[in-house]
Amino acid sequence: MFLKNCWYVAAWDYELIDGKLLSRTLLNDHVLLYRGESGKVSAFNDRCPHRGALLSKGRLEGDAVRCMYHGLKFDATGKCVQIPGQDLIPPKMRVRTYPVVERDHLIWFWPGDPAKADPSLILDLPYMREPKWKGLPAYLHYDANYLLIVDNLSDFAHLAFVHTKTLGGSEEYAFVTKPVSVERLERGFRVERWHKNIDPPPFHRKVIPDKQAKVDRRNIAKMHVPGIFDMETLFAPAGSGAENGNLAGARQYRNCQFMTPETDRTTHFFWNYLNDFEGSDSTISQSLLASLIEGFMEDKAIIERQQKTLDEDPSFQMLAIMADAPLAHFRRVLEKLIEAEQTPSPATGTHA
Amino acid sequence: MFLKNCWYVAAWDYELIDGKLLSRTLLNDHVLLYRGESGKVSAFNDRCPHRGALLSKGRLEGDAVRCMYHGLKFDATGKCVQIPGQDLIPPKMRVRTYPVVERDHLIWFWPGDPAKADPSLILDLPYMREPKWKGLPAYLHYDANYLLIVDNLSDFAHLAFVHTKTLGGSEEYAFVTKPVSVERLERGFRVERWHKNIDPPPFHRKVIPDKQAKVDRRNIAKMHVPGIFDMETLFAPAGSGAENGNLAGARQYRNCQFMTPETDRTTHFFWNYLNDFEGSDSTISQSLLASLIEGFMEDKAIIERQQKTLDEDPSFQMLAIMADAPLAHFRRVLEKLIEAEQTPSPATGTHA
Amino acid sequence: MFLKNCWYVAAWDYELIDGKLLSRTLLNDHVLLYRGESGKVSAFNDRCPHRGALLSKGRLEGDAVRCMYHGLKFDATGKCVQIPGQDLIPPKMRVRTYPVVERDHLIWFWPGDPAKADPSLILDLPYMREPKWKGLPAYLHYDANYLLIVDNLSDFAHLAFVHTKTLGGSEEYAFVTKPVSVERLERGFRVERWHKNIDPPPFHRKVIPDKQAKVDRRNIAKMHVPGIFDMETLFAPAGSGAENGNLAGARQYRNCQFMTPETDRTTHFFWNYLNDFEGSDSTISQSLLASLIEGFMEDKAIIERQQKTLDEDPSFQMLAIMADAPLAHFRRVLEKLIEAEQTPSPATGTHA
Repeated sequence: MFLKNCWYVAAWDYELIDGKLLSRTLLNDHVLLYRGESGKVSAFNDRCPHRGALLSKGRLEGDAVRCMYHGLKFDATGKCVQIPGQDLIPPKMRVRTYPVVERDHLIWFWPGDPAKADPSLILDLPYMREPKWKGLPAYLHYDANYLLIVDNLSDFAHLAFVHTKTLGGSEEYAFVTKPVSVERLERGFRVERWHKNIDPPPFHRKVIPDKQAKVDRRNIAKMHVPGIFDMETLFAPAGSGAENGNLAGARQYRNCQFMTPETDRTTHFFWNYLNDFEGSDSTISQSLLASLIEGFMEDKAIIERQQKTLDEDPSFQMLAIMADAPLAHFRRVLEKLIEAEQTPSPATGTHA
Repeated sequence: MFLKNCWYVAAWDYELIDGKLLSRTLLNDHVLLYRGESGKVSAFNDRCPHRGALLSKGRLEGDAVRCMYHGLKFDATGKCVQIPGQDLIPPKMRVRTYPVVERDHLIWFWPGDPAKADPSLILDLPYMREPKWKGLPAYLHYDANYLLIVDNLSDFAHLAFVHTKTLGGSEEYAFVTKPVSVERLERGFRVERWHKNIDPPPFHRKVIPDKQAKVDRRNIAKMHVPGIFDMETLFAPAGSGAENGNLAGARQYRNCQFMTPETDRTTHFFWNYLNDFEGSDSTISQSLLASLIEGFMEDKAIIERQQKTLDEDPSFQMLAIMADAPLAHFRRVLEKLIEAEQTPSPATGTHA
Repeated sequence: MFLKNCWYVAAWDYELIDGKLLSRTLLNDHVLLYRGESGKVSAFNDRCPHRGALLSKGRLEGDAVRCMYHGLKFDATGKCVQIPGQDLIPPKMRVRTYPVVERDHLIWFWPGDPAKADPSLILDLPYMREPKWKGLPAYLHYDANYLLIVDNLSDFAHLAFVHTKTLGGSEEYAFVTKPVSVERLERGFRVERWHKNIDPPPFHRKVIPDKQAKVDRRNIAKMHVPGIFDMETLFAPAGSGAENGNLAGARQYRNCQFMTPETDRTTHFFWNYLNDFEGSDSTISQSLLASLIEGFMEDKAIIERQQKTLDEDPSFQMLAIMADAPLAHFRRVLEKLIEAEQTPSPATGTHA
């Protein structure tokens, strides 16, 4: 059961270049995404209403798409505008379309009631458009429900054990640091955690000149419904007083991650790991991309196996530890939103 | 749900040479087909009644088959005639057999009530035995229900879009031609369609000397229960009056296709595409075989994906266009026959 | 449905060398088997009670295991002894453990009620420890329910047909020999069968000097609950009177096979085929191992296909022949034991 009246990331903009008819499963629906010749992006149910052939195997004609089984043509609103050999077109011969919005290099997609698809509800992450933040857009596919990835991002103790040699740096992180702040938000949570006077963790050490100097590390992580994670990471010279606002010599990262359900058991994972210090040295973004992939592959092995374990024994009850408070809150928030969506509202009125 | 009291093609005769014990699933049953030393073809349920071992992994002994697990031997009627180490053979130790008839290079198989298996009900396609028609017997396996292939063959608009560069020739075919005749038959349909003054389509152009001359093309396609397609194709010089019976300079094809369900979601597809003009030039049959495989692979990609689409969403209701009239009629005919077969008949009496 | 209060073989001892965290599914449970630094073998449910990560992907620390997702540490009794970043450990944070016993190079495992796990119930096969018996421990995985392997071992007619050129020697075995004795045991059966004045079967001929001399062959096979097979095989010079106790010139084998369910449809198959005559010539064990693998692969092909046949048609009723008496008895014995185990006992009291 997914939250339907919500914006999800469907694709990066670069995936739709050159007239590509992109076939992608989103929340169990097969969707065709494409940019028409006018530049407008459309999202169709990827199934010809005539005999069910894939429209993504069809042909782009202007802003329209022609099914290449029997030649039916649909305009960008999903309306059938031509049936070869037949003059009259039945009005119900239409393809289902979905609201889409292109913003900050992302294609956002609304799987629920189109009347409620208000673009102002799209989460704003300014780092995704500000020139000072540099990074490379990236994608991974997970064989796991998207909430297991949300869970993973909710407890930073895993950095110590899963990512010791990549993103974490040392097992000490799990033992000596604790969140200084855990906030329950209306549609998510916020966790702040410091780790002081430490060696720079491997991914960071690779891209800085002074690899020996101790640093203070601060992570401010936020999770937002349905599964959008942004983390502000700061590395400052150890003892320089970053906790009091002195950012001299600090280097910062902005981690933007978008988890979109493909099916109940698979996930599209989009991200961009941005930095504010590379200047014109693009090898820094490239090194960070490689480091993040390395780290995410460590997560992926655990999370995909977790999915199998849960599938094999649906009666398994996980036992929470104290660090699970944020994820437990997030799951409650999401359940309530889904429950509200499933309950027929007494009055009419739009959502927005 | 399949029609059971009906002849289906089980194999080509050449598949049973050299004592081959051919294991083939037909209408969800595992069947052993073989030619005994006497020349007679038998069809057994491919499962030893003792412990379920495959008889197709057994040994041909004359017209009998021995299971090579514990050595039980069954004669061509399915009766157990030897149990090693045991003198008395229980009468119920029998393998189920099916009626089979060998005719015109095909092995026909009757999955229903053996008492109703009248060989005179086998569809007669004389081209399959007349020497003037030359061709090569062929086979493809489909990961789709056989009726999706029947559907495909029912609407010739698909020639224009799916087979533009192979069997079709141009998209114009879908726009400017219409069937001159659609007949609803008691056990199928007949469609006649002309396309005049056209370039020869690619598969035909390859095997004729004058590749530039325009032609008139006529297709007379018939579909028969349970899923047998024959099409008479004529190419005559453009404007030569073939529609009035002048066949001077005409070249003809006979397309015989036999769709036999393997399972609910897979199909055995047998065919022979015959021509009347190759004389002693067997490269023409070879070229046509290659062209037909090329064209069928184009269908197969669409049809197999259609099967997945239907599996994923059984609630999907296709919307018919006018060209779907023949397939709609065929499906109604078949449904009524299956329904009649499922209803217990009030009186006794045989089918034939 | 498996018998749970019973010892099963989980592994060979050599599989746990060098701190290996062995992940193995046993009776549908995912189990972690390992030897701690103290030498003691433990069996854990292979699932961290916190978030379900695999403990077999964790780290051995002394006799304890640390989960490498969030760092929880469990001692050899399954008790959680450390949660990084949290002082209080909830008592219910435990991993399920299973009774295990290491004996005669085998790791025995009790999947049922730990209170009933009496080591004296482990079947004693003295050949497994006596120095006069030489052999090599071996393993095969079967894609079939373990009882189909038990069935296979219950009827020696299959030696004649399945193993003619490996373990059997001739089809005559099925026709001219019969068991001289079939005994129904309380927890299994015993079958004795002689085959006299025969050529040595291929596997035996390979390891003896006189390959032409006729032999008398005696097999005494026993099957024990849940699926443990031991067979005493004797080859004596033909006519030397072995049936009267004259063992001059005889060579003997002891076949110990342990079938442990992995899942309902897959099996762990452990065996050691021991001989009493190789002396210091270890090539004899090596040749016998190769012969047994060759023979078991012949069984495996049949048995795995049998499993598919049964899966495809659960309504299939096998028809018994006279030679099936031992297997029918064994299945009844097992069913009664399982039924008794499922019935709640009226009084308390332990099994042992």
